[in-house]
Amino acid sequence: MKLKIKKTEISAGRPIAFLPWKTSAKLNVKPGDRIEISQPHSKKIIATIDIMKNLPDSEIVLSKKILLLLKKPFGYVEVSPAITTKSTKYIAKKLHGKKLSKKEIFSIIEDIVSNRLTEAEIAYFVSGVYHNGFSFEETRDLTKAMFLTGKNLSWRSGKIADKHSIGGIPGNRTTPIVVSILACLGIKTPKTSSRAITSAAGTADVMEILCHVSLTTEELKSCVNKTNACLAWGGSLNLAPSDDKLIQVERLLNLDPEAQLLASIMSKKLSVGSKYVLIDIPYGKYAKVSLSEAKKLGKKFHKLGKSFKLKIKVVLTPGNEPIGNGIGPFLEAQDVLKVLNQSSDRPLDLEEKSLFLASELLQLCNGFSKKKSDSLVSDCLISGKALKKFNQIISCQGKKPKLKPAQFKYALKSKSNKKIKEINNKELSHLARILGCPSEKTSGIFLHHHINSIIEKNEPILTLYSESKAKLSHAKKYLLENEIIKFN
Amino acid sequence: MKLKIKKTEISAGRPIAFLPWKTSAKLNVKPGDRIEISQPHSKKIIATIDIMKNLPDSEIVLSKKILLLLKKPFGYVEVSPAITTKSTKYIAKKLHGKKLSKKEIFSIIEDIVSNRLTEAEIAYFVSGVYHNGFSFEETRDLTKAMFLTGKNLSWRSGKIADKHSIGGIPGNRTTPIVVSILACLGIKTPKTSSRAITSAAGTADVMEILCHVSLTTEELKSCVNKTNACLAWGGSLNLAPSDDKLIQVERLLNLDPEAQLLASIMSKKLSVGSKYVLIDIPYGKYAKVSLSEAKKLGKKFHKLGKSFKLKIKVVLTPGNEPIGNGIGPFLEAQDVLKVLNQSSDRPLDLEEKSLFLASELLQLCNGFSKKKSDSLVSDCLISGKALKKFNQIISCQGKKPKLKPAQFKYALKSKSNKKIKEINNKELSHLARILGCPSEKTSGIFLHHHINSIIEKNEPILTLYSESKAKLSHAKKYLLENEIIKFN
Repeated sequence: MKLKIKKTEISAGRPIAFLPWKTSAKLNVKPGDRIEISQPHSKKIIATIDIMKNLPDSEIVLSKKILLLLKKPFGYVEVSPAITTKSTKYIAKKLHGKKLSKKEIFSIIEDIVSNRLTEAEIAYFVSGVYHNGFSFEETRDLTKAMFLTGKNLSWRSGKIADKHSIGGIPGNRTTPIVVSILACLGIKTPKTSSRAITSAAGTADVMEILCHVSLTTEELKSCVNKTNACLAWGGSLNLAPSDDKLIQVERLLNLDPEAQLLASIMSKKLSVGSKYVLIDIPYGKYAKVSLSEAKKLGKKFHKLGKSFKLKIKVVLTPGNEPIGNGIGPFLEAQDVLKVLNQSSDRPLDLEEKSLFLASELLQLCNGFSKKKSDSLVSDCLISGKALKKFNQIISCQGKKPKLKPAQFKYALKSKSNKKIKEINNKELSHLARILGCPSEKTSGIFLHHHINSIIEKNEPILTLYSESKAKLSHAKKYLLENEIIKFN
Repeated sequence: MKLKIKKTEISAGRPIAFLPWKTSAKLNVKPGDRIEISQPHSKKIIATIDIMKNLPDSEIVLSKKILLLLKKPFGYVEVSPAITTKSTKYIAKKLHGKKLSKKEIFSIIEDIVSNRLTEAEIAYFVSGVYHNGFSFEETRDLTKAMFLTGKNLSWRSGKIADKHSIGGIPGNRTTPIVVSILACLGIKTPKTSSRAITSAAGTADVMEILCHVSLTTEELKSCVNKTNACLAWGGSLNLAPSDDKLIQVERLLNLDPEAQLLASIMSKKLSVGSKYVLIDIPYGKYAKVSLSEAKKLGKKFHKLGKSFKLKIKVVLTPGNEPIGNGIGPFLEAQDVLKVLNQSSDRPLDLEEKSLFLASELLQLCNGFSKKKSDSLVSDCLISGKALKKFNQIISCQGKKPKLKPAQFKYALKSKSNKKIKEINNKELSHLARILGCPSEKTSGIFLHHHINSIIEKNEPILTLYSESKAKLSHAKKYLLENEIIKFN
C-alpha cells in the first residue's frame, strides 16, 4: 500500500509509524504490531504502529528515526504488515537452556538491528543468556553477528591497534593518554568509546569536554589518516548497532551477561578494523571481578580474539580503588591534561598505568622488548610529543571552548590523623551520579588521597562538585550517611 | 506544569503522551521516559512520552488509553516527571535467585498496573519467576497483590461458585454447561473467562458467538442477580488487571511460569468474590501437564485456595485428546448447544465431563452426596432446565444473530479401515489457528472421531472449515505434512 508521508515531526526514540484507522484495518494491524516501510532502492524499515484517527486515509506519520533512514523523507512510502520472525522461537530455546546455532544467533541479532524484536523480547534474550550462559561457539557467533550487522571500517596500511578496559574503576581515564602515545609511535588507533552507562563518565563523555566526539565515518577516517588516531564516540557510527540496543535493555536492571560483555567489546574492535588488541581487566574487592574471575575472563577474551585472528593480550590490573584524582567528565579531563602536560600536580597513578598499557600494546604491535617499549612510550610522554599529538587529534575532531569548574562545592575534611584502608568504587560512582554526572559535565568528585595515604587532621579527603546546589546537598547527605571510605 | 489536552485521537495500545519540545526540555524528560498526569480528584496516570515538535508549548496530546482514564478528557492536566521506582531493584533481586517480600511483590504488581514498568522490565520479572520459581509465600503474596490492585465484586447473599480449567485441551467447552446447571440449582456463578491466547478459542470467544460478552461491572451484577450467573469476558472488567499485562508479555514467548499460572487463576476467582472453587487439571501426553505434574500442581492450588479461606476442590481429568467435536469459536458453540438441547448427535464426552464437573462443584457447595448431586445435575440437563437457564443468561447479556458455517471446507477421509491411536492436541490447536481461529469465528475443525474409534475406508476423520480459501489450503497442506493423528 502506497502512503504519503505527512510532515509531523515526532521523536519517540524508536521507529514508530502512525496510520489512519481505515488503513490499519485494511492492513489488518493493530497498535503495537509491526509494519515494513520501504522506498525504491532503500532497505526495508520495520516500525511499530500507533493509530492516529484524524489522519487522511492516504497518509502516514513517521517518527524521526524512520525519516532519518529514508532517502526521500517527504515523499511516498510502500507499507505492508511485517512478516513474523522465527527469532522469538530461538530466544525461547535459549531461555529453556538450549544451545543456539550460528543461524539462530544471526537471526536474533539481525532482527534486533532491524527493529523486528520488541524490547521485551530482547529482555528475554538477555535473561536467557544471563541464566544459561553461552558456549564458546555461541559467543563467537554472537560476536560475528554483532559486527557483521553493522558498518565495518577498513584501512589501507598501518598497524591498527585498540585498547579496552572492562570498566568499573572510577577515574580510570588512560585511553586518551595511551592513544596519543601510540599514535606518536606510528600505530594507528581508530579509538571509539562509549558514554557512561552506570558510571560517572565514559571516555566519550570525558573527551567531549575538550572536543567534538560525534563524528561521521568520513570524519573519523580523515582524523585517523591525518593524526594516526581519533578519540570518538562509538554511538553515532553504526558499528555493531545491536550492541546499543542490547545495552539499552540490559541497563534497565544493570545486567551484564558475560557472553554479551565479550561479544560487545570484541565486535566493536573488529568493526573498526583492529588487528592488535589489548584488554585491561581491573580486579579487586570493589572492581567488577575478583582476581580469579579476571583470570577466567582473560582466557575467554584471549580465545575469542584468537578465533578472529587478532593479536590479543590481556592484562590484569589492580582495581581496588579509583585511578587518578578526578571523577566525572570535567575532572577526569583535567587529570588527563595534567599528565600530558607533565604538571607537577599530575596524578602519578594514572600516568603509571597509562605508560604500562601503552608499552604493553606497543610490544604486541611491534614485537619490541619490554625495556625498549617502556623507554619509547615514556620518552614520548616526557618530551611533550604525546601532548602535541593529543592536541592534533582534538583540533582534528573540533576543539571546544574551555569550561569552568562547577559552582557549588563541599570539601570533606578529616577530623583526626588517619589512614585510608578502603575506597568503595561503586558507592563513589553512585555519589558522582547524585552530584549530576555524567550529564552535568563539571559535577563530580576530586579525591585528594588514595589507599594507604595518611591524612592529617583538617586536611580534605575529597571535594564534591556540582552544578546544582540541591544535588550537592543531597550528595553531601549521602556521603555522610554511607561509609564510602574506610579508615584504619 | 499545567497543559491543555489537544484533541488528536491516537491509539497506541498503551498510555502515551506527546509533549512539545520545549515542555519536554523544561520537564527534563526525553522520548521513552515516563511522566505523571493528573487532574483534580482523579488518580495519577503514568504515561510514556514521545516528542511532537509542532505542538504548541502549552498543549499535550494523550493516547486513547489515557483519555479513557481521565475525568475531563478535553480539559487541562497537571504533568510532572514520574518518580523512579524501586521495583526494578526487586525484579533484579528475583532474577538473581532471591526471595521477594510481600512489600516487594506488591510494589512490582502496583507498578505493572499503573504503567510504571516497561514491557522489557516485566519480561525480566517473568524470566526471573520462570527460572527461579516462587515459594508458597511469594505465590500467595503475588495472588493477593494481583487481586487487590483491581476491582473486587461482592455479593449480598448466596453461595458464590466458580470453576476453572487450566486449559490445553481443544474443544473442552464445559463452562457454559456447568454454569447453566449450577445456576439452575441456586448456586451463583459470576463466571468471567478469557479469550484464546495460544488456543483456537477461549470460553469468551465461544460465548461471543451467541451473545455479548464485554459487560460492564453493573451489567455483570445485574445479570447474576437476575439469572444467578453470567458468562462474560474478564478482560473488560478491570479484575486483577496486572494479569492481562503479564499475559501479554508472557505470550511473546509462550511462557507460563507456574507461580503466575496459580496466582493468575486464583486472583481472578477472588476478585469476583467466589467462595467455592473447582479446579480442573487435564493431564496426559498431549495435555499441559503429566499425571504426576497434575498431582503436584493440584496440591499447590489446594494450599493456595485454603490460605484465602476458599472451599476448593481439584479434579484431575484425562486430557489426552480433544473434548467434543468442534474446535474453534463457532464449532464449539454448536457443541455446547447440542448438549444443552440434548440433540441426538451431541458430543457425549463433553456432556459427561460437564455433568461430572457440575456434580463435583455442587457437592462442594452444598455438601450433598455424590449420588444426590449426580442425579440433580443430570435431571437439570435432561429436563431442559439448564437450556432454559442458558437462554436466560444469553438474553440478559444480549443475544446475537445466528452465524452461518464457514464457506470453505475440506474433509480428510480415511484411505483404509483403521483405528485412532493418538491425537496431538497442540498440533490440532495450531491447525485451527492456521484456519483463522480465533479471530475468524466460524473457522475451525470438526473432529468426527476420537481415540479408539474405528474408521472405515472413505469415512471422514476430520473436516477443516475456514472463512478464507488461502487459509484452508495452507491448513490442508499442514495437515497432510504433519502427523497430527496417529493410527494403530
